[in-house]
Amino acid sequence: MRYAFEKAVDLSHELANGMPIYPGDPAPSFERAATLEKNGVNLTRMTLGSHTGTHTDAPIHFIEDGIPVDRIPVSDFFGEALVIDLSGKKPIGSGIVAADLEPYGGAIKNDDIVLLYTGSSDQWGNPSTNSNYTYLTGDCCEYLARKKVRAVGIDFLSVEQFKAKEPVAHKMLLSHNIFIIESLSNALRQFSGQRILFVCLPIKLQNGDGAPSRAIAIPIVEE
Amino acid sequence: MRYAFEKAVDLSHELANGMPIYPGDPAPSFERAATLEKNGVNLTRMTLGSHTGTHTDAPIHFIEDGIPVDRIPVSDFFGEALVIDLSGKKPIGSGIVAADLEPYGGAIKNDDIVLLYTGSSDQWGNPSTNSNYTYLTGDCCEYLARKKVRAVGIDFLSVEQFKAKEPVAHKMLLSHNIFIIESLSNALRQFSGQRILFVCLPIKLQNGDGAPSRAIAIPIVEE
Repeated sequence: MRYAFEKAVDLSHELANGMPIYPGDPAPSFERAATLEKNGVNLTRMTLGSHTGTHTDAPIHFIEDGIPVDRIPVSDFFGEALVIDLSGKKPIGSGIVAADLEPYGGAIKNDDIVLLYTGSSDQWGNPSTNSNYTYLTGDCCEYLARKKVRAVGIDFLSVEQFKAKEPVAHKMLLSHNIFIIESLSNALRQFSGQRILFVCLPIKLQNGDGAPSRAIAIPIVEE
Repeated sequence: MRYAFEKAVDLSHELANGMPIYPGDPAPSFERAATLEKNGVNLTRMTLGSHTGTHTDAPIHFIEDGIPVDRIPVSDFFGEALVIDLSGKKPIGSGIVAADLEPYGGAIKNDDIVLLYTGSSDQWGNPSTNSNYTYLTGDCCEYLARKKVRAVGIDFLSVEQFKAKEPVAHKMLLSHNIFIIESLSNALRQFSGQRILFVCLPIKLQNGDGAPSRAIAIPIVEE
């Protein structure tokens, strides 16, 4: 068994003008500040939110005195992940409950990263999905906390129900120091039911509540 | 022999207001756009250049028709690296020539990533170093291109002499599709003379000339 780095698969969205964002987040902007033609060099100026595109949520996103993204130990960004296909939960916009995860419970190991493919990512770019995506209930997050997972990833803008009055999913996970990866792409689907090495590196934003990240799946192959 | 992910070491600088930048690059700004106290959530708005902090240069930074950062194959971001200590080249601000690398030539393998610790990184935060750091000459980059390395990393703002009339180092490397990692921290020093697994993931900036990146060293240990 080995990690097949040569078969790495990108699970990240492109950062671009007009990209989907959580409604109300800072509007992202990417523009060339210098060009080869005019200046002899291409440079870009970018403005974006800490939770734009594929990104990591640190505990301080919702927990006072929670650790910021630059203080998550870097070894935690490399870990084995179980990919669970929940796209059978219909319709898109439903809340995942603990009972939806229980059939997979035996496969979730202590300190695993759990990556949830809900199918919402197949609608990336469809504006109506930005406010109606499959999310995690508090009950589901409590189940994951009891399983002592390291991190939880999901394939759309948030683990939380859109405009939830109480951010129960974030608070349950982040208060247990379980960090969160949001807006994974639907490239995740191909690993449904599999274990992978998951490498997701956030940029090192000082005292950051979260940070844009590059998320990569490394297949685990039998030798 | 195995990769010791549990001993991962961060080689990245923090992104923060007032951080060192290449003089003339967009001024970075990081500010909370929402806070737990006022809004029930911490969110950050950030403005920065594509070459701010620890970052990757893609061929299109200096090469017309060069590939952008989002088109570098993700498997290339995971690779064995040789760390070379050139801090004996005095003073800081000197140009590294091919002859400085030749003593290490036998240890550089085809497709290696070569990471150069020059000692300039020990002066990170000293404003005068921002315009006077140790750089790579065209001759040195031609040597690395002949060695068919995959990528070259350096521990300060640029591989290029400050305000060079001709960007010979960038052009030599990028025209050979050798991507560049700049502004690695002086945490690199501890690996001098060693081989490591080097994982450096740039955020996925569409058509990006470069992108802020998180760079991590994974020690290689004997079992």
